[in-house]
Amino acid sequence: MKTFLYPEPADWAALSKRPVQELSQLREGVQQTFDLVRQRGDAALIELAAKFDKASLQDVWVSEAEISAAISQVSQELKAAIALAYNNIQVFHEAQREPVKQVETIAGVTCWRKSVAIQKVGLYIPGGSAPLFSTLLMLGIPAQIAGCQEIVLATPPGANGTVHPSILYTAHVLGISRILKAGGAQAIAALAFGTETVPAVDKIFGPGNQYVTAAKQMVTQLGVAIDMPAGPSEVLVIADDSADPDFVAADLLSQAEHGPDSQVVFVTNSEKQLQDVKAAIATQVAQLPRQAVAQQALNNSVGVVLNTSEEALDFSNQYAPEHLILSVANPEALAEKVTQAGSVFMGHYSPESVGDYASGTNHTLPTNGYARNYSGVSLDSFVKKITFQHLTREGLERIGPAVETMAEAEGLRAHKHAVSIRLAKK
Amino acid sequence: MKTFLYPEPADWAALSKRPVQELSQLREGVQQTFDLVRQRGDAALIELAAKFDKASLQDVWVSEAEISAAISQVSQELKAAIALAYNNIQVFHEAQREPVKQVETIAGVTCWRKSVAIQKVGLYIPGGSAPLFSTLLMLGIPAQIAGCQEIVLATPPGANGTVHPSILYTAHVLGISRILKAGGAQAIAALAFGTETVPAVDKIFGPGNQYVTAAKQMVTQLGVAIDMPAGPSEVLVIADDSADPDFVAADLLSQAEHGPDSQVVFVTNSEKQLQDVKAAIATQVAQLPRQAVAQQALNNSVGVVLNTSEEALDFSNQYAPEHLILSVANPEALAEKVTQAGSVFMGHYSPESVGDYASGTNHTLPTNGYARNYSGVSLDSFVKKITFQHLTREGLERIGPAVETMAEAEGLRAHKHAVSIRLAKK
Repeated sequence: MKTFLYPEPADWAALSKRPVQELSQLREGVQQTFDLVRQRGDAALIELAAKFDKASLQDVWVSEAEISAAISQVSQELKAAIALAYNNIQVFHEAQREPVKQVETIAGVTCWRKSVAIQKVGLYIPGGSAPLFSTLLMLGIPAQIAGCQEIVLATPPGANGTVHPSILYTAHVLGISRILKAGGAQAIAALAFGTETVPAVDKIFGPGNQYVTAAKQMVTQLGVAIDMPAGPSEVLVIADDSADPDFVAADLLSQAEHGPDSQVVFVTNSEKQLQDVKAAIATQVAQLPRQAVAQQALNNSVGVVLNTSEEALDFSNQYAPEHLILSVANPEALAEKVTQAGSVFMGHYSPESVGDYASGTNHTLPTNGYARNYSGVSLDSFVKKITFQHLTREGLERIGPAVETMAEAEGLRAHKHAVSIRLAKK
Repeated sequence: MKTFLYPEPADWAALSKRPVQELSQLREGVQQTFDLVRQRGDAALIELAAKFDKASLQDVWVSEAEISAAISQVSQELKAAIALAYNNIQVFHEAQREPVKQVETIAGVTCWRKSVAIQKVGLYIPGGSAPLFSTLLMLGIPAQIAGCQEIVLATPPGANGTVHPSILYTAHVLGISRILKAGGAQAIAALAFGTETVPAVDKIFGPGNQYVTAAKQMVTQLGVAIDMPAGPSEVLVIADDSADPDFVAADLLSQAEHGPDSQVVFVTNSEKQLQDVKAAIATQVAQLPRQAVAQQALNNSVGVVLNTSEEALDFSNQYAPEHLILSVANPEALAEKVTQAGSVFMGHYSPESVGDYASGTNHTLPTNGYARNYSGVSLDSFVKKITFQHLTREGLERIGPAVETMAEAEGLRAHKHAVSIRLAKK
């Protein structure tokens, strides 16, 4: 951990600079994958699964038999944990429903908006060492609450040709039955353009490697929406002397284990706390199975001492972290001042991992400074908010003259006429 | 107007196909503009204003004297119209505030989200023949309600070096004092990257020509958010025999006058209504100052007769129009079934132009089929929704074991440990 004592605000941005993502050199390869999937559909997916996933597939879709098998393979303990998480995520996202609220902006002019589900969505869950069934919960639950008509899950098969049981079980719990065995840019292509068996979707969600990220970026220019731009995961922890250094160290390490490019930032108003946390990290990291990964992330991590917790929060607001943990005696006061963060964890018993799995908040959050201008995934991400208006003749009489004047001033005579012709007829 | 009688659903998509936007050949030129603005800042903006706007600028910023002059140049009538529109837009967007709602997902686990303004936003208003002060209202009012700290307006100067009085007056009413005299890709570059006097913003809003559209698309890959992807404006009108063909014709023409690429679609369950509307269009178009433009758009417009209004609405849902006008006897029943549209106008006294100017709804809406997967601009567009959570020790005891189980199953031991270490200490 690189440490900085009392840096000046002008230097803050430089201390916690994020790595630059350079995806442009991937685009040509991704474009070739796109072309292949567009031209040959499922056959291309089968070919690419053999090439990249070492999987020999007969069919790109998970079968009912595979789902049944998965259900019996998942432990009761994990099923109970998923059920608890499901409930909390459901409760929190249900509360995000926006009721229709009719507003009479002026007598006779009634306007409202209504949330309507995006019809077809694709959820991408990466493969690799960790089966991210938790991400499937985070995407699938709001999709179900929104009422999306078609939910397609895409995830790469293992070398054995099937998908990890915990993913299949979670999909089953969510009522998602269309599960495509495809990963990487080819999965994004199949979801964006469709194939003979895959429906083209309106919006694609979920994390992935740099090819997935580049592919998602590219499809946004072809009419498909995505959840948000991606980048390496990150946490910023603010702690004062009330914090237990063992807890803080554990929180920093749970970010560091994500990957060598994970961003870990620690800010405190106490030099002693910084020393104690560093010592606790050294002890704890040795016990981790992903020690090598965590150590690499820690080498790039930053520890900053500032004068006060308020100053620490100013630092955090300029950094705009994906996750912000306020391990301080009075987190409420600091939380009030947060202007840029994805998700905020308050107090000594709110580690980031509760939000990653089971407290109810969504864990798909803006990274890479995007907390400045993007929200995390929520029910909003799965709906369009359509506006409606209804005017009575009296309402039109009331606002019509203003519309006529403004349309005339903008040189749009037919806009004016659409009002005038109505007001002229009795 | 090309007319189609009772086409089969399988053919609907082909009837109302939109023109393909091809922006990729513009990217190189836009990139050069980006490089120029990044390298030379305001000097580049002045140079490009001379080149593209034929304007000789001393300063890229509108002066207080220019604003004062504009205030005296705008008529009392227009000022009153703007005041009325302002009020209605304000009322409708104020109602979109989301109160903070704390949710106890399980005892001891409290989660909520809070809307916080995006700090720095850029509003782009195009120049050209029509001074779009109404768009400035539509973007500026929610930006003010959200509480954005920095609002920069960019709009190209006229050849006289200044900005249209109605734009400056509207900015004044909105309390926006930073008005940059820049248009095109150079304006987007200045807002995205900043110059020595322009602050780099977090999100850019507003319509523009194809260079602006390409530039906005490109900056999304560089960390800056935009309101939504752009395309030509469009309306779909559904009318039954209760509609007055003069009103319907006026509505179709008010879309057609926007530009030769405007998309105009008319769907009815009455062959007679189609004939009557066509006749009314022929009469009305002759009276328009923008007749040539409207005629070009009309040549590409589509009239479709289907069996019922319900079928007409199915047609509309597959088209996903920016604006949908329901000129039918019972618009409420049809409106219930709308799943894809930007904004819906119900009944015989709700022409699109009221929503364009003064009813209160926003007129920055998804075009080009993006109503499938994007919402129009609203207060949401100017905020991030940050999630918060606070767990008591008892709350952590309640969900901690589930978190431990799930983290273990995903192979993330440090995530598990952040819970275990807390539960282990008394």
